[in-house]
Amino acid sequence: MFTFHTQKYFSFNKFLFLSICSLVLFTESISSQETLAEKLGYQKDAKLLIVHADDLGLAHAENMATIKSLEKGVVNSSSIIMPAPWVSEIANYAKKNNNAQDLGLHLTITAEWKNYKWGPVASKEKVPSLINEQGYFFEECPSNASVAEVETELRAQIELAYAMGIKPTHLDSHMGCLFWGNLKFFEVYLKLAREYGLPCLVDKSFGSLFPSEDAFQQLLKDQDVMVVLDQDFTISEEQYAEGPEQYYTSTLRSLEPGLTQFLIHTAYDNDEMQAITIDHPSWGAAWRQADFDFFTSDVCKQIIKEERIILVTWREISKVLKN
Amino acid sequence: MFTFHTQKYFSFNKFLFLSICSLVLFTESISSQETLAEKLGYQKDAKLLIVHADDLGLAHAENMATIKSLEKGVVNSSSIIMPAPWVSEIANYAKKNNNAQDLGLHLTITAEWKNYKWGPVASKEKVPSLINEQGYFFEECPSNASVAEVETELRAQIELAYAMGIKPTHLDSHMGCLFWGNLKFFEVYLKLAREYGLPCLVDKSFGSLFPSEDAFQQLLKDQDVMVVLDQDFTISEEQYAEGPEQYYTSTLRSLEPGLTQFLIHTAYDNDEMQAITIDHPSWGAAWRQADFDFFTSDVCKQIIKEERIILVTWREISKVLKN
Repeated sequence: MFTFHTQKYFSFNKFLFLSICSLVLFTESISSQETLAEKLGYQKDAKLLIVHADDLGLAHAENMATIKSLEKGVVNSSSIIMPAPWVSEIANYAKKNNNAQDLGLHLTITAEWKNYKWGPVASKEKVPSLINEQGYFFEECPSNASVAEVETELRAQIELAYAMGIKPTHLDSHMGCLFWGNLKFFEVYLKLAREYGLPCLVDKSFGSLFPSEDAFQQLLKDQDVMVVLDQDFTISEEQYAEGPEQYYTSTLRSLEPGLTQFLIHTAYDNDEMQAITIDHPSWGAAWRQADFDFFTSDVCKQIIKEERIILVTWREISKVLKN
Repeated sequence: MFTFHTQKYFSFNKFLFLSICSLVLFTESISSQETLAEKLGYQKDAKLLIVHADDLGLAHAENMATIKSLEKGVVNSSSIIMPAPWVSEIANYAKKNNNAQDLGLHLTITAEWKNYKWGPVASKEKVPSLINEQGYFFEECPSNASVAEVETELRAQIELAYAMGIKPTHLDSHMGCLFWGNLKFFEVYLKLAREYGLPCLVDKSFGSLFPSEDAFQQLLKDQDVMVVLDQDFTISEEQYAEGPEQYYTSTLRSLEPGLTQFLIHTAYDNDEMQAITIDHPSWGAAWRQADFDFFTSDVCKQIIKEERIILVTWREISKVLKN
């Protein structure tokens, strides 16, 4: 879930933030002479799209809907909450399918649901600042947690993925805690992405979190970072209220050339999801069903065809960036 | 779940074992002059029954069905898997209801389901012999695990229950790992029951696990134990295949005087439970739905009425034993 639980911690509007932000891929440095689209074999002004479903491992209903949307819909990428209870179901799927799907790690340091909890992958004694008195993650981003402990936990999540037979294609951050929680967390995130050779999602708007835009640019430079101008969309509560199909349709119809990512959440609106998301209609069960319905619909496929949108994955991008 | 996953570890038939065994309550010593039935205010030859649903906290479907069976059915006791993901839902229920229900702790050192996992409540570093390389509990009873680590983990589970606002009424053992896994585990179980002042379920047939029956009797004596002759029933795979209603009906119709416990598992046969119990028809989703159906039925209530069976709880028993 790429949510806005963290709003109380930040003054800026993250809906707007995400809607206008660009996407940055952290990976090996490449020549700036050629666009990503060209490297992938498309026209310079091609409209490339990743349709990315967050929160695999959260629930059986999330796993099943997301797998179906990856196999039958236009969803072509997803990422996994490693501390969540249903991760083994995804690991078994990944192994059975020879890790054919685009599966990233949705690095997670929160357990935000009221009645359904998880704690760290690392030993609790090693990450005391990340857990509440019951041993679970906090519901909100723990912005004042120990940076060293965040690194310990994120490293444990990545190592667990490999130990379970998952070959992650990329990294991102659940609830954005590694982006807007603490600048030092962001640096850990970049460090681990480089260390494991995994591309990771970054907004270039993150520059606003740094003492200066220059300092941010320097960090990108020091990381041998390739910046791919892009757009990154996720539906807001207001847009959901107006109708998901309307929002997604208009956004796809007006897609700009370059690389765009849709961050969505696909699950079934059943007893399990309704119970997990109780008291939380935003990113709730019906919301996730609506995402599933649109991105597995013929309407969506037709729009993508008519708009000549090209679906690309993190795996494909990673390969050309590494060549 | 009071299951027979552990069959490979033991040569005796636990179905038979449970069907013929008696129930022993470990609590403060009391006079042997008066029967439990009399202490509770009933005739000496009264038929007392606890209908006990295991595995609270396992799943939303398990929680909802068990709460309904506690509130509307004849189920009058239950116990909680503290390391499981849905424990917060039960803790919130217990607090909201001022711990009015009979809720014990189903002490757990296994994670037996294929796609749905949990690990220890204690810090993983403190209980390395209880976890696999992924940090989850093993699927089978870890009979060779460190006894000290078992104590650490069980203590953590009991402490977590209190920290979450649950006031446990009794202790028992998930999959019987503390009974037939290792005699030293059984001693830890008794020790913690005494330390926390909680009655715990024991079969007097456990004597067969000791070097001699005398040694077992001595252990009971040293623990100031009150032995309540009783019967303890759980449905076997063969009995389930023949029809749960038939088994439960005939067992209730032939109930002996004294204290009897039925160990059952109440959940809904829905997507969530089917996914959790995948590849495991015994104690599966349909099995749990059948338990729910029978023990919330008018047929069951009528049999209990006709047979003059008196429903008693661990809480009630604990009170009279302590007086």
